[in-house]
Amino acid sequence: MDTGTLIRKTRDRQQLGRDEIRWLVRRYARGGIPDYQMAAWLMAVRCRGLSAGETAALTGAIIDSGSTFDFSDLPKPKVDKHSTGGVGDKVSLILAPLVAACGVAVPMVSGRSLGHTGGTLDKLESIPGFRTTLGYRQFKRVVGRVGCGIMGQTDRFCPADRQLYALRDVTATVDSIPLISASIMSKKLAEGIDGLVLDVKTGRGAFMPAPADARRLARSMVRIGVAMGRRVVALVTDMEQPLGAAVGNAVEVVESIEALKGRWRPDLAAVTMALGEEMLLLAGRARTRRGARRLLEGALGQGRALATFGEMVAAQGGDRRIVDDYRRLPQARHCARFRAPVSGFIRSIDALGVGRLGVDIGLGRRMLGDRVDPGAGFVFSNAVGARVERGEPVAEVFAGERSRAERAAARLAGLVRFSRSAPRPRRPVLARVGSPGRSSGPPAGTSIPAV
Amino acid sequence: MDTGTLIRKTRDRQQLGRDEIRWLVRRYARGGIPDYQMAAWLMAVRCRGLSAGETAALTGAIIDSGSTFDFSDLPKPKVDKHSTGGVGDKVSLILAPLVAACGVAVPMVSGRSLGHTGGTLDKLESIPGFRTTLGYRQFKRVVGRVGCGIMGQTDRFCPADRQLYALRDVTATVDSIPLISASIMSKKLAEGIDGLVLDVKTGRGAFMPAPADARRLARSMVRIGVAMGRRVVALVTDMEQPLGAAVGNAVEVVESIEALKGRWRPDLAAVTMALGEEMLLLAGRARTRRGARRLLEGALGQGRALATFGEMVAAQGGDRRIVDDYRRLPQARHCARFRAPVSGFIRSIDALGVGRLGVDIGLGRRMLGDRVDPGAGFVFSNAVGARVERGEPVAEVFAGERSRAERAAARLAGLVRFSRSAPRPRRPVLARVGSPGRSSGPPAGTSIPAV
Repeated sequence: MDTGTLIRKTRDRQQLGRDEIRWLVRRYARGGIPDYQMAAWLMAVRCRGLSAGETAALTGAIIDSGSTFDFSDLPKPKVDKHSTGGVGDKVSLILAPLVAACGVAVPMVSGRSLGHTGGTLDKLESIPGFRTTLGYRQFKRVVGRVGCGIMGQTDRFCPADRQLYALRDVTATVDSIPLISASIMSKKLAEGIDGLVLDVKTGRGAFMPAPADARRLARSMVRIGVAMGRRVVALVTDMEQPLGAAVGNAVEVVESIEALKGRWRPDLAAVTMALGEEMLLLAGRARTRRGARRLLEGALGQGRALATFGEMVAAQGGDRRIVDDYRRLPQARHCARFRAPVSGFIRSIDALGVGRLGVDIGLGRRMLGDRVDPGAGFVFSNAVGARVERGEPVAEVFAGERSRAERAAARLAGLVRFSRSAPRPRRPVLARVGSPGRSSGPPAGTSIPAV
Repeated sequence: MDTGTLIRKTRDRQQLGRDEIRWLVRRYARGGIPDYQMAAWLMAVRCRGLSAGETAALTGAIIDSGSTFDFSDLPKPKVDKHSTGGVGDKVSLILAPLVAACGVAVPMVSGRSLGHTGGTLDKLESIPGFRTTLGYRQFKRVVGRVGCGIMGQTDRFCPADRQLYALRDVTATVDSIPLISASIMSKKLAEGIDGLVLDVKTGRGAFMPAPADARRLARSMVRIGVAMGRRVVALVTDMEQPLGAAVGNAVEVVESIEALKGRWRPDLAAVTMALGEEMLLLAGRARTRRGARRLLEGALGQGRALATFGEMVAAQGGDRRIVDDYRRLPQARHCARFRAPVSGFIRSIDALGVGRLGVDIGLGRRMLGDRVDPGAGFVFSNAVGARVERGEPVAEVFAGERSRAERAAARLAGLVRFSRSAPRPRRPVLARVGSPGRSSGPPAGTSIPAV
């Protein structure tokens, strides 16, 4: 085989065979193909695309570049959830213990804040003592005992993905649906799970703002799963506005615990429950969506989900007393308020704008190695659609410095829009992609207002 | 400026400004942009194309990476011809002295055999003593005194083109019309010429076999010339079969001298005269095609073109006695004949096949550094369309070893087709591209049979 020929084939929209893709990735991972040839291939993929079969082969080849987790001796179905990233997306913190409390093992390997979006690991690390860097055996013990665990990326998984990502990052080949799908799916399937539920965000605050692109990405990832013999379902969910009330690290932990106590915003509840239903269905814990919902509601109502969260925190070294005493979580020193400049309805909250403003107050990283401020964040006291009076607080901004908090509060004025009449409600769950390539509307049985 | 942004723009079909392209090429030439980023940009260009303005800017940036010739003190118009490469294409050897004998300076910087096509320099170097490696001052003296000179590529010209070509060669980005055009035009315009006539070959033996691609390349190159304030005309000519009778090095020198003595095949005459007319028109030596033709015929008929050829040979260190004594040219030791296996008309001669067979007997190089055999070659005693009797010689094959000559002669059987009836004559000149983007049929006044 010869690299030039493979580049030419992709460039000319001829399909590469599984062996050809495997050869390309393996050889590149071992340093046998120079970066400039791989860069040309990646750009050819970005411009010409890859078929479903090629994308699955690429995913397999990336998985094979490293080792995988083997949880086959855990006597439970193993299902995970992955989100493409959003603003205020604390779903993993709620969903992992909730689904685990229903008898499913959830071994979640998660990420850090990226650009304007938050990171599950950064949120969890705001809990005093919580460790996200676990070894394979440690992690397996946590998942085995608690039912769920959330750890950071391990170097053992998919080294070829890291090499490819570093190259894509500097060659304008990041935003390619087959490359994104293969990158996400390889890391998730390396977890040794039986099923995967994908939360593909769309709207202003998502990496795929256009719903059509989000659907394409969802279909591409589901097809990879099917090709590799795993059960995969994707929900396309709304990220036009932040999800729930809080955006930040400790503030999102608080909102997650409140949710596990049964107090949550309807949008957060809708997305979390819809994803949870899919996970229970994939795991075979329920046969119908209604049955799955009943299980989830039971685990919440009986406090089992909250208890599982506390166990996970403790098992990963964290202070579980935070569950009842939020003051044990980091708190920013300063708080500023953004008040409604007019009376009326909150028409929209710009998720991208809030995410970017969050980076300014320390929620995310501008550069690798930047430290996040665990106490900083936003809490929106009113959601989109709420009626507010002029001067009424709309959001609190928490930051380490007064000037930063005040500046951010002032800048919220440009990100929150008001209207005289109530805006049309948005659907939190926009589409479901299940069996190969077919997509449908939101799952039946979720009480989501139809647009 | 930032390389990633420029790659992204080209990838997304947004135009780069002149300054952006200049920055990219200059920075790359100085080692400030890694190969992998340039490879991604080249693949984006290969997939998305470049506008006429971008291609001209790229050409200018490549020229600016090196130095240029300045012939402005030569008191004559300076016009050159460039061919995209063919089999049996000895036109430069005839045309340079022919046009020079009409009062135009022809400073020709030429190339070597590439793949299945021959190289003007290899042909000239079969003349004992002929030197193609000249310094700028030497070359200028030759052109000033003789009227024409033919030298090899100089390292002074367009170093960025060499870097880019080396990268394109290993990243499947060679066959991109804007990149090919910029590469050719930068090197020709660095010669300091006022006008340029391009011979864009099409058909089986050409690098652009499809006529539509050849036209596109012709238009792209003419547009670059116009954008850079030079007069440029392109003829699209036929390379389905070898041009003229001889394919090789010394054998083509002989055919060229015969042509300068007025004995040549109609196809070779048609292409050479059409190109010569364009050169004289561009140089302002004639106002009409008919007038230009009369000048060329005069230079041939009065022996001035032949004399100029001899002077050029002598000025470049060669033995001018070869003009009258072909035995002073290298001759292959062995000759084998290919005879007609049936009686009938020669229907076609596969130019690509003959070119590739030529590499086997030593006409071209498989690898850089291979030596060519100056005496080897083919001489077709009959042209396409000729009637031959079974057993009559169609071609002679000259090679250094008997077995090679015989093997090649045998393999010609697969490359020459015969038919019972006379084939439709082919037009040697297929199209002309003059002022920006407009193309037309063959120039009026050339006696080319219409298809």
